[in-house]
Amino acid sequence: MCEANAYLIQGDKEELVMESVDIVEPQGNDSWRLVGIFGDQKIIKGRIKMMNLVDHKIFFESKTD
Amino acid sequence: MCEANAYLIQGDKEELVMESVDIVEPQGNDSWRLVGIFGDQKIIKGRIKMMNLVDHKIFFESKTD
Repeated sequence: MCEANAYLIQGDKEELVMESVDIVEPQGNDSWRLVGIFGDQKIIKGRIKMMNLVDHKIFFESKTD
Repeated sequence: MCEANAYLIQGDKEELVMESVDIVEPQGNDSWRLVGIFGDQKIIKGRIKMMNLVDHKIFFESKTD
């Protein structure tokens, strides 16, 4: 399975916000809807900073401006 | 391996723009840098419409406004 873990970067902290993410969809401006492999959902406010699919990682960063 | 294929949606057309994408990074406004598993790179102008990681698919849509 190729789901990924989603991390939120705030300053120099990196927080795991959701595991086993399947679907990532924009939800308005700078907000993303994540859907996990079991159908669980989470809304993340922030921007995509980088996705590394082979490492199963998605990094979001919260807006600081 | 959990790389994905990147598709660009323009109107009702869906075009495969890159296979075996590993890294996805924003590159300025509405532009994304894709890096493949062999280090090949491509810049896509558009927005992420949806990513389906379990299906290995990333859909971009070009700006129409």
